[in-house]
Amino acid sequence: MRPAEIVPIIEWLGRYRRADLPGDFTAGIITAIMLVPQSMAYALLAGLSPHVGLYASIAPLVLYALFGSSRALAVGPVALISLLVASTIGTLDQQGVSAHQSALMLAFLVGVFNILLGVIRAGFLVNFISHPVISGFSSAAALVIGFSQLKHLLGIDIPRTNNILEIIESAVAQTNQVNQTALALGLSCIAILILARGPLSSILRAMGVKHAVAVIIAKAGPLIIVVISTFLVWTLELDKVAGINIVGVIPAGLPSLTFPLANIDVWQRLLSPALLITLVGFLESISVAKTLASKRRQKIDANQELLGLGAANIGAALTGGYPVTGGLSRSSVNFEAGANTPLASIITAGIVALTVLLLTPFFYFLPQATLAGIIIVAVSSLVDSKMLKTAWAYNKADAVSLLITFAVVLVYNVEVGIIVGLIASLGLFLWRTATPHYAIVGRIAGTEHFRNIKRHNVETNPEILAIRIDESLYFANARFLETTILAAVAESPAIRHVVLICSAVNIIDTSALETLETLIDELRDAEVTLHLAEVKGPVTDRLARTELLNKLKPGRVFLSAHEAIAALERE
Amino acid sequence: MRPAEIVPIIEWLGRYRRADLPGDFTAGIITAIMLVPQSMAYALLAGLSPHVGLYASIAPLVLYALFGSSRALAVGPVALISLLVASTIGTLDQQGVSAHQSALMLAFLVGVFNILLGVIRAGFLVNFISHPVISGFSSAAALVIGFSQLKHLLGIDIPRTNNILEIIESAVAQTNQVNQTALALGLSCIAILILARGPLSSILRAMGVKHAVAVIIAKAGPLIIVVISTFLVWTLELDKVAGINIVGVIPAGLPSLTFPLANIDVWQRLLSPALLITLVGFLESISVAKTLASKRRQKIDANQELLGLGAANIGAALTGGYPVTGGLSRSSVNFEAGANTPLASIITAGIVALTVLLLTPFFYFLPQATLAGIIIVAVSSLVDSKMLKTAWAYNKADAVSLLITFAVVLVYNVEVGIIVGLIASLGLFLWRTATPHYAIVGRIAGTEHFRNIKRHNVETNPEILAIRIDESLYFANARFLETTILAAVAESPAIRHVVLICSAVNIIDTSALETLETLIDELRDAEVTLHLAEVKGPVTDRLARTELLNKLKPGRVFLSAHEAIAALERE
Repeated sequence: MRPAEIVPIIEWLGRYRRADLPGDFTAGIITAIMLVPQSMAYALLAGLSPHVGLYASIAPLVLYALFGSSRALAVGPVALISLLVASTIGTLDQQGVSAHQSALMLAFLVGVFNILLGVIRAGFLVNFISHPVISGFSSAAALVIGFSQLKHLLGIDIPRTNNILEIIESAVAQTNQVNQTALALGLSCIAILILARGPLSSILRAMGVKHAVAVIIAKAGPLIIVVISTFLVWTLELDKVAGINIVGVIPAGLPSLTFPLANIDVWQRLLSPALLITLVGFLESISVAKTLASKRRQKIDANQELLGLGAANIGAALTGGYPVTGGLSRSSVNFEAGANTPLASIITAGIVALTVLLLTPFFYFLPQATLAGIIIVAVSSLVDSKMLKTAWAYNKADAVSLLITFAVVLVYNVEVGIIVGLIASLGLFLWRTATPHYAIVGRIAGTEHFRNIKRHNVETNPEILAIRIDESLYFANARFLETTILAAVAESPAIRHVVLICSAVNIIDTSALETLETLIDELRDAEVTLHLAEVKGPVTDRLARTELLNKLKPGRVFLSAHEAIAALERE
Repeated sequence: MRPAEIVPIIEWLGRYRRADLPGDFTAGIITAIMLVPQSMAYALLAGLSPHVGLYASIAPLVLYALFGSSRALAVGPVALISLLVASTIGTLDQQGVSAHQSALMLAFLVGVFNILLGVIRAGFLVNFISHPVISGFSSAAALVIGFSQLKHLLGIDIPRTNNILEIIESAVAQTNQVNQTALALGLSCIAILILARGPLSSILRAMGVKHAVAVIIAKAGPLIIVVISTFLVWTLELDKVAGINIVGVIPAGLPSLTFPLANIDVWQRLLSPALLITLVGFLESISVAKTLASKRRQKIDANQELLGLGAANIGAALTGGYPVTGGLSRSSVNFEAGANTPLASIITAGIVALTVLLLTPFFYFLPQATLAGIIIVAVSSLVDSKMLKTAWAYNKADAVSLLITFAVVLVYNVEVGIIVGLIASLGLFLWRTATPHYAIVGRIAGTEHFRNIKRHNVETNPEILAIRIDESLYFANARFLETTILAAVAESPAIRHVVLICSAVNIIDTSALETLETLIDELRDAEVTLHLAEVKGPVTDRLARTELLNKLKPGRVFLSAHEAIAALERE
């Protein structure tokens, strides 16, 4: 491997064009404006102090820029991963390990897993999660995240839980304790964010504001509400007068070097959550990266992405952060704002670093209700009902796996939800292949084509049963094939030949091979000869290594169904 | 449902012919002769008293005869299930629940699970275990069982473990404590059993003994060694003189009614072992039943079998037995000895009942080394290397799943072994479907057939890429398809049309549907049109419910590859 293949920055920095700089610069700034408030909000969601989110938005971005293969991916804290981190460190808190210590350990493990998966080239693993499962998972997780912010929005104390019903119940029981100032503040923030996302940039442009400026203002929504609400709390002393919860002291200065340390027992307990975070993080990241890359005909190497994310997470572990990945909305903003190369991310990291150095005193009066508003608006776009509609109309099994995932995440928890979804979608696929479609076929008059006798007007011969099985033959459906053919033969005593058309058979495994041998004997006892037709090249090659073709005699292997029927009719 | 469908005995007893009686009678006696010593040996293997095995060979047989659908299946204690019972009750022994109490509870749960699976018609579940996994599992389990008998054969004390290396180590460390009389006795028994299995019946017939008598004598091997060795121990007082371990007191009389009772916690711990025993037991039973039934063109209904086994196990739980299933070698003996109907099993049960009533004092001096010999010879036939050879030559993936199962059973344990085997075989199948075979095809001159350009001498058109994907399109391979086609198009700039031949595509799931839509757009950007050909009926029906066919335009769906190429060449 060339160095540029391991460290892609060598590739793009060597060819860096001056023309790329304005785009990278603008994108870097706009992304930073989004990232600063988001990263504090997500850290809070993860059960960590806000400054941990800022720390996770410096070194990881630079490291991803060095090792990642996507040009526009914006790495950092994201909502889904923060939720997973929260539920993991929540359980460890009672064991005497501080929340931040376990978050560092998680980030370290996630980094190691990413690199390991990249080295063994296991990036394909994420392909085994189907789109409907992803959709059900993110919709439900978004709801869980949204409701987890209710306590900040209402200024009340709700015990940590992922159960939405419990949250609502607890909130209803405390209706009279709701902090109405916090609620008003939070709802105003949400309103402003929705405005900024949608109509604002059209309004600004209608008012004659330049396009680029309009975009920056629209994307600065979170920053604007942070500034306004902090200013309000500070001047009106809302923390004292109205009991608004504020962020409080944030340590100034760049993060110092941190080492994730604990006894082996704690490491072991973190292994499976870390693996889950790795897979979910990689899945989110690679989906975004592929979408953006295809828009500019660039290439994403899944295994290189794993290395990039691995470096970013180990960076997070060593500089006081927590697990990071490529975020969906943030990367889109980065891309649309003109990011041409990962330099944009390095600029973003620089701005976050300056913020940490200079601006932390400013965040003292930042109300938690504002951060809750940012999170709620950010995750609301993850709730997706379109996929359910599509799947329901097209393929009920997919819709079922979507709903199962959605339900388990909501009523049980996020970790179990994605695992159940994975099992459900694999199970439904296996179930379909275990009871395959088959067709008894006949010739379309005047052609060499054979089609289902139930769907087409075709010619058949009473002594010949031509059957096409529409699936690879393997252990789960071998008995199905045997039963189906024996039943068809039992129904029509005139049958002397069975032609098994294998145009859809891509694999015959050892179990199916044994079953075919049994079937040949069973048919022979009933004075019926089995023939094969349209056996594919790779399948033929394998069968040639076995006794099957000998045992088949006097049955034969024909190139096509047409040839088979013609030859058998002549005889 | 008619009553005869639930209680098959109504069917066969109503039509019972006098001519069936001699066969049933002989088979019933021969099976009983095998079963009495085997059932005591297997109970000992399960960590239970020998009489538990006898109790498990009375009521369960009668109940299976009432509810089961196989005519020749011989139900009772078997080696594999006994091993699973042993490892389950071994862990519970420390919890204050007696071994026999947990065995009764296991039998009850196994009965309930069987009936539940039968009622929800889930008999197909066992199809998901591939033949190579079964082969690896039984070979390794047979070795574990065989080695577990070493302590009885050597007359030494080896701590209970499934780890063969530990057993050997422990045996080697105690070489000087080996009871040489026990060893001599055990080895003689093994020698006699091997003789009785193989050469004896030929020798007897050569000596002019009638065939039927010769068969009975050959199958009576276990009974013969039980009689001889008991007699030797009794007359020579080998238990006192040589310290031979003997069976000791066996309670006389029929079993009294037993109720499996314990607190809910114990029941919960038994749930997953019971489910495993149910599945393994059903798998063994249904395989035997199907093989025997196909030899006489009879039908086995998997779900009826579940009911039969369920009744048998609940019977075992209520009459002091332990989990039972249809045994391989015993059923073959029953079948070959002429069993025509389940009456044979009822006769067997009667003989075992008589044995329990009258003959238990006789078993007092029965040496444990003899029972060990019976077990070792019985399981030796389960060790199977033929399947490994076949699979290795034919399909490496199958051989790998066999070896994985074998290794895990040996070095870890039986329960984990079968689960890992199941996951390995499903995983390998999914892996194959996730990276499917595909072929770029061309026309065989003068025909309408299209074949792989790498394998056949075919005609192609530089503007048309005809590609056949040899697998259903689903989430795990959707990206593979996209990447493959885009790469093929990128290689040949002349291409204007891609014809995707779907003759092997049996399913297009929602994920693949989305990927196809993306692919259409991506190809359109490269000024290439995607067409489909040979789309199967069920797939077309589903696609018609979606937007895909609209989005495809100007691409079309052709009936055949021939039609597609002809039409595109005309344009």
